[in-house]
Amino acid sequence: MKISRIDHLGIGVESIDAVLPYFENVLGLKCYAIEEVADQKVKTAFLKVGEVKLELLEPTSPESAVAKWLEKGGKGVHHVAFAVEDGVAEALVEAEGKEIRLIDKTPRPGAEQMSIAFLHPKSTAGVLTELCEPQKKN
Amino acid sequence: MKISRIDHLGIGVESIDAVLPYFENVLGLKCYAIEEVADQKVKTAFLKVGEVKLELLEPTSPESAVAKWLEKGGKGVHHVAFAVEDGVAEALVEAEGKEIRLIDKTPRPGAEQMSIAFLHPKSTAGVLTELCEPQKKN
Repeated sequence: MKISRIDHLGIGVESIDAVLPYFENVLGLKCYAIEEVADQKVKTAFLKVGEVKLELLEPTSPESAVAKWLEKGGKGVHHVAFAVEDGVAEALVEAEGKEIRLIDKTPRPGAEQMSIAFLHPKSTAGVLTELCEPQKKN
Repeated sequence: MKISRIDHLGIGVESIDAVLPYFENVLGLKCYAIEEVADQKVKTAFLKVGEVKLELLEPTSPESAVAKWLEKGGKGVHHVAFAVEDGVAEALVEAEGKEIRLIDKTPRPGAEQMSIAFLHPKSTAGVLTELCEPQKKN
């Protein structure tokens, strides 16, 4: 697969309101979008630093994967998302062929009109890994 | 402080040898340096993805902070390092003035001839945060 850059870091937080002043007033970054991703039961806030986005993830339900991760003591970076240039579907086939465990067998819609899929951290050095690309227009 | 980009992600691993094939053969990234940082009791391997480096951190002693983090169940991204353009020492003064808890009161030498300092995750949305800049030549 052809990875050109890190698209974003997903950072799991209890409350976006509580942490946004740190990112904006201390680090000097700017939140440019707040979006709810119903599918993943999270509210997201996006900031940009260089070519990478920080995606703050606040659970909107105790059933959210991020809520469960926080409850188990998870904190900080929840996942790393790489931008793939030659297709997420193709990257999944390649990864599976190299014995990487997939969480998503096929791409699904994510925030910011991206097509996304996750690889399992057991296969990826403990880093929950997302592959993403802009959704294709039909 | 003026942050221009993410300099690197520190990824804690039990064994660089065990995970490097994933980063190189599946993600297609290339390891360009292996370096031991005696001060932090880690061996590091560096890969580049876009403008960001991935710094794989393998403890060389059970006393290493990374070893303790792994032992407590830590996995994946251990810390996020931001490149500061207007000086790490100045950034620490500013952060402390904004009631951010510092791990390092003054900058110290890190890998790749960088001057580095850590902010405490209690103040930084749970993300162990490093500020860094190239060491100044005397």
